[in-house]
Amino acid sequence: MNAPDTAALTGEMLQLGRGARSAARALREASTATKNYALRAAAGAVRAQGTTILAANALDMSVAAALSPALRDRLLLDGARVSAMAQALEDVAALPDPVGRELARWTMPNGLDIARIATPIGVIAMIYESRPNVTADAGALVLKSGNVAILRGGSESAHSSAAIHAALVEGLRAAGLPEAALSRVPTTDRAAVGMLLSGLEGTIDLIIPRGGKGLTGRVMAEAKVPVLAHLEGVCHVYVHAQADLAKARALVVNSKMRRTGVCGAAETLLIDRAVAKSHGLPILTDLANAGCEIRGDEEVCAIFPGAKRASDADWSTEYLAAIIAVKLVDGIDDAVAHIARYGSQHTESIVTEDKDTAEHFLATLDSAIVLWNASTQFADGAQFGMGAEIGIGTGKLHARGPVGLEQLTTFKYVVRGSGQVRP
Amino acid sequence: MNAPDTAALTGEMLQLGRGARSAARALREASTATKNYALRAAAGAVRAQGTTILAANALDMSVAAALSPALRDRLLLDGARVSAMAQALEDVAALPDPVGRELARWTMPNGLDIARIATPIGVIAMIYESRPNVTADAGALVLKSGNVAILRGGSESAHSSAAIHAALVEGLRAAGLPEAALSRVPTTDRAAVGMLLSGLEGTIDLIIPRGGKGLTGRVMAEAKVPVLAHLEGVCHVYVHAQADLAKARALVVNSKMRRTGVCGAAETLLIDRAVAKSHGLPILTDLANAGCEIRGDEEVCAIFPGAKRASDADWSTEYLAAIIAVKLVDGIDDAVAHIARYGSQHTESIVTEDKDTAEHFLATLDSAIVLWNASTQFADGAQFGMGAEIGIGTGKLHARGPVGLEQLTTFKYVVRGSGQVRP
Repeated sequence: MNAPDTAALTGEMLQLGRGARSAARALREASTATKNYALRAAAGAVRAQGTTILAANALDMSVAAALSPALRDRLLLDGARVSAMAQALEDVAALPDPVGRELARWTMPNGLDIARIATPIGVIAMIYESRPNVTADAGALVLKSGNVAILRGGSESAHSSAAIHAALVEGLRAAGLPEAALSRVPTTDRAAVGMLLSGLEGTIDLIIPRGGKGLTGRVMAEAKVPVLAHLEGVCHVYVHAQADLAKARALVVNSKMRRTGVCGAAETLLIDRAVAKSHGLPILTDLANAGCEIRGDEEVCAIFPGAKRASDADWSTEYLAAIIAVKLVDGIDDAVAHIARYGSQHTESIVTEDKDTAEHFLATLDSAIVLWNASTQFADGAQFGMGAEIGIGTGKLHARGPVGLEQLTTFKYVVRGSGQVRP
Repeated sequence: MNAPDTAALTGEMLQLGRGARSAARALREASTATKNYALRAAAGAVRAQGTTILAANALDMSVAAALSPALRDRLLLDGARVSAMAQALEDVAALPDPVGRELARWTMPNGLDIARIATPIGVIAMIYESRPNVTADAGALVLKSGNVAILRGGSESAHSSAAIHAALVEGLRAAGLPEAALSRVPTTDRAAVGMLLSGLEGTIDLIIPRGGKGLTGRVMAEAKVPVLAHLEGVCHVYVHAQADLAKARALVVNSKMRRTGVCGAAETLLIDRAVAKSHGLPILTDLANAGCEIRGDEEVCAIFPGAKRASDADWSTEYLAAIIAVKLVDGIDDAVAHIARYGSQHTESIVTEDKDTAEHFLATLDSAIVLWNASTQFADGAQFGMGAEIGIGTGKLHARGPVGLEQLTTFKYVVRGSGQVRP
């Protein structure tokens, strides 16, 4: 349903923001048991309303008939996906509560007892695209971390998201939490996104976009409030001269080809010139056999005739597809300089048996995640042991890398005294 | 010197940004010893060039003849203040290096060793007003935390800041660090601030404004990059019915009157109605005797005839002067509701002997600093044991409360493996 005019939409959105803000205190103070009860009740409601959710999804799918197969697959729900969604809610309930943790505590010489305590951030606007399960996954993480969510899913998944949202709200109601704790933008009007980006008169503390570069780029460029996101993952694997060949072959193929559409997929491969033939040739052969297109610099094309010639743009391209850019480099400094120039500070991996070189790589690069002898596809909250992630950040402030429950909190200082005045 | 035209200024500023960015890697990798050497050499240069610095300051003072006595005092340097500035540089050298700290470390079941390591943020633009010593204080903290600074002081202190900056650069040079690590905007053209706020084509990671509400408000409203700041400190003291009278008298007078111009000074006093006469009267008398103007609600004016009648605006006013707004409340919930409505989430203190009430106050309020039986004037990095602070933040992201060296870092994940691929 589209709002009849801008004034009506503005009024509706501001009301949504105020509602979310007024729910924030209840969520901030909600006990772990209450939040978990809401999550488990929501899981029960998702299962109980499975038929309704699938019917809503069928409606979305019929409207989306013209979309690409990949987008249709993202949008599609079936019984297994609905079950997985309910299970994910229960999994978040089982995670430790990040709120109230004592992050640090010390006593000053004057007796002041100072503690840094983890607190919720407040109101988080989630702006995402077609996958309807984000409604449940993101809603669960925001709720468990004591925050309030304003959810704005893609228009293609509007019916599915509405049905899932209804189940979440049932969980809130069962736990006695305010329904506004998981608010949903009730219109698919694109102007609503612009209003979220403006912060809805100071009611939004943080925006987390989940989707393609178009959405994330718009959010980053236009938001008037902090954004937690990564624009893209131009991730590198660097095969050092002292790389173990077997490890290098396995790591490169896994980093690129396990799933090509994830942000932690490798996009550029750097190989030391000294091992271009001994290591480069078998690695490129593996990639080609796995169905990957090779775009190489001049030397790579000379060694591996199956390669296409890379253009300058290739070094900074996030393909999200079975394509890899490959370049020969002269050792660690050359590799680091290339990554610093063309990378997106997301995730980079070095393959080497030489500890000193590895530590230099790990220390020098300023990316959110740097790995030694491990696949870039580990760039994921679950793989980091966080239980779940709401996204990955490449900004410098607050949180970088996988953003899990702990990263959805901020802190305050609690100071206990006995009448101290400042001299 | 003002740039002749906008194009020239733009070019000059972009060059400044690129210079700072290119210095960032050297600072990120600088050893603790190198950074400390630079700070101590800078302290030596400040002392050696004391005469030059004072002459530059005299020039600023002569131009600033028309300013208010308070502003002239902020601007004024003398031998003692120059010595204190040099000492402050050495104090920062003596603080622990926040870079490279292992913030967390764990091993996953597949053997991946994951560490969260503190790293510098990058390029920090400092925009400040008349006090020339901020050039040295802020420069030292930014340098010690491995960051690069772009310093933009007020036009009134331009000559003083330039002379102090020259001494800092001498320290960098002596330590073999790039001079661009502490860059100074060489023009007093106000348009330069706008360019800093735009982020200088992605070269600035963070902006920290230091100054009045006018400056901070403009920075917060216009900046395209993250800002670490507080707009104002409307700090509260709440005298609970079970407050110890002697403690309450000392804490209220200290919170308000120790220094009225600091952001942690109390601006509003809330008193439980039950102790309006027993506690309120002596406290208000103390305040009046100390030279404080009382602006009370109707009941306060009835009890204390010396009080003026407060208007609605008084409850959200940061006086930064010897004025206090006073209101009677009905217990903790009423006090918390008032603070949540009118406060600025900076610093609030409760005075009570009742532990449960105190803990409720500490848990419920969402301000950056909440205190029990202690003066709000402790809202300060040095008083928190941080050694020094670059400012105080009230935003929700990254850092809140006093911002010291640790808060000037971010982190990255360092992952050490042995060939793990992701299933």
